[in-house]
Amino acid sequence: MNKIYFNKNIQLIHKEIQGKLKKTNKIIDTYLNSEIPIIPKLGKYFFKKKGKQLRPVLCLLSSKMINKNYSKLKTDIYMSAALEFIHAATLLHDDVIDKGTIRRGQKSINEIWNNKFSVLLGDFMFSKSFQLMNQGKSLKAMGHLSEVSSKISEGEFLQLSNENNMNLKSNEYIKIISLKTAELFGATLKIPAVLAEKNNKEINNLYKLGINFGIIFQIIDDTLDYFGDKKTGKQIGKDFMEGKITLPIILLLKKIPINNAKKLKEIFNKNNRNQKDFNFAFSQLEKYEIKKDCLSYAKKYQIKSENILGKYNNKQSKLLKDLLVSSIKRQN
Amino acid sequence: MNKIYFNKNIQLIHKEIQGKLKKTNKIIDTYLNSEIPIIPKLGKYFFKKKGKQLRPVLCLLSSKMINKNYSKLKTDIYMSAALEFIHAATLLHDDVIDKGTIRRGQKSINEIWNNKFSVLLGDFMFSKSFQLMNQGKSLKAMGHLSEVSSKISEGEFLQLSNENNMNLKSNEYIKIISLKTAELFGATLKIPAVLAEKNNKEINNLYKLGINFGIIFQIIDDTLDYFGDKKTGKQIGKDFMEGKITLPIILLLKKIPINNAKKLKEIFNKNNRNQKDFNFAFSQLEKYEIKKDCLSYAKKYQIKSENILGKYNNKQSKLLKDLLVSSIKRQN
Repeated sequence: MNKIYFNKNIQLIHKEIQGKLKKTNKIIDTYLNSEIPIIPKLGKYFFKKKGKQLRPVLCLLSSKMINKNYSKLKTDIYMSAALEFIHAATLLHDDVIDKGTIRRGQKSINEIWNNKFSVLLGDFMFSKSFQLMNQGKSLKAMGHLSEVSSKISEGEFLQLSNENNMNLKSNEYIKIISLKTAELFGATLKIPAVLAEKNNKEINNLYKLGINFGIIFQIIDDTLDYFGDKKTGKQIGKDFMEGKITLPIILLLKKIPINNAKKLKEIFNKNNRNQKDFNFAFSQLEKYEIKKDCLSYAKKYQIKSENILGKYNNKQSKLLKDLLVSSIKRQN
Repeated sequence: MNKIYFNKNIQLIHKEIQGKLKKTNKIIDTYLNSEIPIIPKLGKYFFKKKGKQLRPVLCLLSSKMINKNYSKLKTDIYMSAALEFIHAATLLHDDVIDKGTIRRGQKSINEIWNNKFSVLLGDFMFSKSFQLMNQGKSLKAMGHLSEVSSKISEGEFLQLSNENNMNLKSNEYIKIISLKTAELFGATLKIPAVLAEKNNKEINNLYKLGINFGIIFQIIDDTLDYFGDKKTGKQIGKDFMEGKITLPIILLLKKIPINNAKKLKEIFNKNNRNQKDFNFAFSQLEKYEIKKDCLSYAKKYQIKSENILGKYNNKQSKLLKDLLVSSIKRQN
């Protein structure tokens, strides 16, 4: 089991759905076109580094997993492109909100141009996502996806309201990441079932699977903010510097002696944190072995997911299971 | 004709569709609900001053103008609420882009809270607009509206690309305001015809009517930025201070002697403009009677609109015609 690596699994999945992924990327390129030259320019810059494309990739994998006539379907391709545009829009607005300077290993749009361009490009991509959904020709699928979009904003608001809140409980943290991240994964896996008019039970199972995957994904992301590998291009300590309370800090506060907890709270109550502050937090996280705790926490969601996946028994469900297992061990 | 006043006409139209407008506003309130308390708090603050509600009002008026069974229809109410949410989202993002501090006579969200809240509330409202469109149960109508959303971003981008561009031609200016403002008015008037499955010719006529109305509306808005009445709560000189080249400046440059044109160009080429700069520009605008020129320019679109409206001959088309005529004379 230890030999299953996340990036390797992503590659295998990309290969499994590569024909349609190519079409998805072609559609994305087409929808970035505009008679206003700055738009394709910015769009191409943004998508130059494609990232893992987890959402379109998982949408297509789910579609192949549940549909016998997968190769004849076309609506799933439009939906997978729509998912990527929603994700891109949230990243563009996130970078404005969090003053992000690096995105996918290159300078962010707001850093090179400015916040205005990042807000407008996000709006453009958001509206393109709805045009793409329209190509799915399913009011039900559109209903689900437009609901997810507002859940993402709700998650962002909830996170914003809890900046520097050292009393944040782990269940409240799970609520935040469910809304801002996991709901889109839930939609990603269930949308193909909605398009295929599967029964509600199956739709709901795929939704839960996506939610669990999304929660795992975000927990690991938040853990890597402290324990990640700089070499992979991740910005370490970004959440910390912004005063975001994430799972590592929540679990640390449960173990740490009262004096150190007080010091940590003072650090998070400040308007800005520095490298010395980070070093203190990191030393405590290491001392109390919080990385291990975070991975165990994520593991609970893995087990739930495996139960759902057990109902399918094909190449795609196996690939998805391997991805789930390895996602807890990923380093970037 | 001179006795027809814009605000009075708006009131008459409000009265004509008041039953459904009430329902629209109820739906808006409902869709502002969220388990995240800050969202309805911000939403209620934003909608405390409702403004003219031109888009939902015109959508309902158009619906009544073309439908014999207007009173039985419900989808138009959802669409009119969707239009108001799209408009609200663009205002919230505009205020971030233009650093707006006053919106509808009260402090803007970005001014009281900050840019993050304004970006996220805009995203929330944008996604709610799509949920509302979904209630319209018409893929075709949704297709039109999602297209408009991306046109609005295109218009904003085009405007951004032309800040301080003193060579902007009047046709390029019309292109900008068509995209950023008039397209939404075009959709506003045509959506009821799409819902009612009217023929393409009628849909297209209503679209053109809306486009013309939107262009007039924006030309007058831009004219009032120089000639408006401070007492009505309008911020005078906002476009000027931001370096936006609008119709008054474009028309002025055609009349002004070369020396003064040079001075004006220097003013717009600066990073910031001050009250003295504004006073100079304003003195030139007055001297060359540019207000009159702007109104004549707008009048061309009024005449085109009247031709289209002539095909209808009922109470609603009369109200719409009076609104069009008076909109050129409005003071706020």
